[in-house]
Amino acid sequence: MHPSPVSAPESVLIPFDELRSLLQQIFERHGTSTNVAAILADNCATAQRDGALSHGIFRIPGYVSTLKSGWVDGKATPIVDDKAPGFIAVDAANGFAQPALMAARNLLIAKARSNGIALLAIRRSHHFAALWPDVEPLARDEGLVAITVVNSMACVVPSGGRSALFGTNPIAFAAPRAGSEPLVFDLATSAIAHGDIQIAARAGHSVPQGYGVDKHGQHTTEPQEILDGGALLPFGGEHGAHKGSALSMMVEVLAAALTGGNFSFEFDMRTHPGAQTPYTGQLIIAIDPSLTSGQNFADRCETLIAAMSDAGQSRLPGTRRYEQRKLSMEHGVPVDVARWRELLQLAEGQ
Amino acid sequence: MHPSPVSAPESVLIPFDELRSLLQQIFERHGTSTNVAAILADNCATAQRDGALSHGIFRIPGYVSTLKSGWVDGKATPIVDDKAPGFIAVDAANGFAQPALMAARNLLIAKARSNGIALLAIRRSHHFAALWPDVEPLARDEGLVAITVVNSMACVVPSGGRSALFGTNPIAFAAPRAGSEPLVFDLATSAIAHGDIQIAARAGHSVPQGYGVDKHGQHTTEPQEILDGGALLPFGGEHGAHKGSALSMMVEVLAAALTGGNFSFEFDMRTHPGAQTPYTGQLIIAIDPSLTSGQNFADRCETLIAAMSDAGQSRLPGTRRYEQRKLSMEHGVPVDVARWRELLQLAEGQ
Repeated sequence: MHPSPVSAPESVLIPFDELRSLLQQIFERHGTSTNVAAILADNCATAQRDGALSHGIFRIPGYVSTLKSGWVDGKATPIVDDKAPGFIAVDAANGFAQPALMAARNLLIAKARSNGIALLAIRRSHHFAALWPDVEPLARDEGLVAITVVNSMACVVPSGGRSALFGTNPIAFAAPRAGSEPLVFDLATSAIAHGDIQIAARAGHSVPQGYGVDKHGQHTTEPQEILDGGALLPFGGEHGAHKGSALSMMVEVLAAALTGGNFSFEFDMRTHPGAQTPYTGQLIIAIDPSLTSGQNFADRCETLIAAMSDAGQSRLPGTRRYEQRKLSMEHGVPVDVARWRELLQLAEGQ
Repeated sequence: MHPSPVSAPESVLIPFDELRSLLQQIFERHGTSTNVAAILADNCATAQRDGALSHGIFRIPGYVSTLKSGWVDGKATPIVDDKAPGFIAVDAANGFAQPALMAARNLLIAKARSNGIALLAIRRSHHFAALWPDVEPLARDEGLVAITVVNSMACVVPSGGRSALFGTNPIAFAAPRAGSEPLVFDLATSAIAHGDIQIAARAGHSVPQGYGVDKHGQHTTEPQEILDGGALLPFGGEHGAHKGSALSMMVEVLAAALTGGNFSFEFDMRTHPGAQTPYTGQLIIAIDPSLTSGQNFADRCETLIAAMSDAGQSRLPGTRRYEQRKLSMEHGVPVDVARWRELLQLAEGQ
């Protein structure tokens, strides 16, 4: 789904720090606090740097229109509640999820280390970004195994159902490796991520059968028909969509019922024209693998990865991101020329 | 995949307690301790009762031949190691996983209550049963949310690979509901469970395209070709099998690397003719949802389920099991007549 940004002739290559600074300026200019701007800018620049284009600068106009609409509080201060030795609850106070995670991050790490496992339940939060940046650093910098789930907005039909109910409800996972970047995946429990459907619609590409239905509930390969009152299908294919649907349901239970956040079908942003961010919850579980019995965890992950390679799996989940990251850090982050001009204007407050 | 046991004319209806007692006798007669026999008999009779036929009495000959082979220790005493306030490690000592879970169960529940979340890591264990019985009681009887993963034996090709590496690696989830049986699912991360492929092969049914490959790595719809040196594919269908594969990889990391157990490709049972049980690990996470902020968790699950019904999803995961359970408890557990005779003979030690 991702066009190759490096080979696109209309791209400019922007140093990562410059891109991040510009994004921070945009966030601040459009109503966030300095702290929130720094966190979201780093998140968004990171996605662009790693070639995760559907969650890179593609999202900036949506952030800006959402902030302008008053739907989200860009200056919210998250409230961290230390519920139990392994359980932290955070009220994001109608702000973004990433600052809520950052506010509780050190406590989560400390609890995972002292208890072996700890849970962070974020509610009243807006998550409009890729999910893997929430767990990758916990594995890379802290040596923890981390799993996170977030629900979004009703756009996925449950298995056997007629109308949209679940969000794209991704699951992200990260585990440290010995002497290498962590093993990370981030997968939507829908057949395709919502951002990728939007990108396909813009590009005029069709999508495979089984990705979505139109407003009449009929299967369609036209992304615009999926967006215009239709819905996505759970991942799993013809015979396995009930499994994708069950996992999506689990994400609703964990990210909303367990955190005290909204289910994907429970909020109504229509009173805030321009609002685009799902107002839901997020759950993060961190595990300290140093308690593993008798074996070194990171070495064991290497053994598994070597076996995957021997079995013929040529690319690990996350490999493409690491490859693009390396290129971006060496040569600059590829940004579409027209988009770059748009960003410069947004930074001026236009 | 499951033939309806109730309508099969060659079935007898056995009271649940009678079936369980007979199975206990079989296990004891074939080399387990009384305690292990009681736990495995309850597990296997429960699966048969609930119509989970691929993990019901269908498994008994495999248990018996495995015990006879000396591959598993039916009298093993699990060693429980209280690693941290939220982390228990159990060495199953080459015994079955279910007695290892039972040995640590009360400690797991107590830790989940006092910490909010707790983890049970079982290693050196044999799991030859359905996975949902390991979590359903934690939700139903204790009000906990529980997730478990177990790896098995190499029979699934990783995404893009050529040869079998992962197990069928199921994920099971249970959450309490207000005034109803818990919400439970148990899904193989392979396109089909191994037991169901065996049942399809016996019945002479074909399976859909995308379930497996033959020994040459070619897609096949013949279950026997999948069993004869072929392999299963991860679930997810033509465009989503990389997601099923990523989840299966996660199960290897959690159930084996994190517990200290074997990966699905790391043990060799060929020196024990008749052995059939995967010698791996299992991870169970239990969460106390009473710490949820400001809302009643079980009520919230009801809200979600009502919305799933409103969206047109007619059957929840687990509904079929609960329906068959009710029938079995009222009328007896359906057992094929020929199988019942076989069980009676096995109980006599034949």
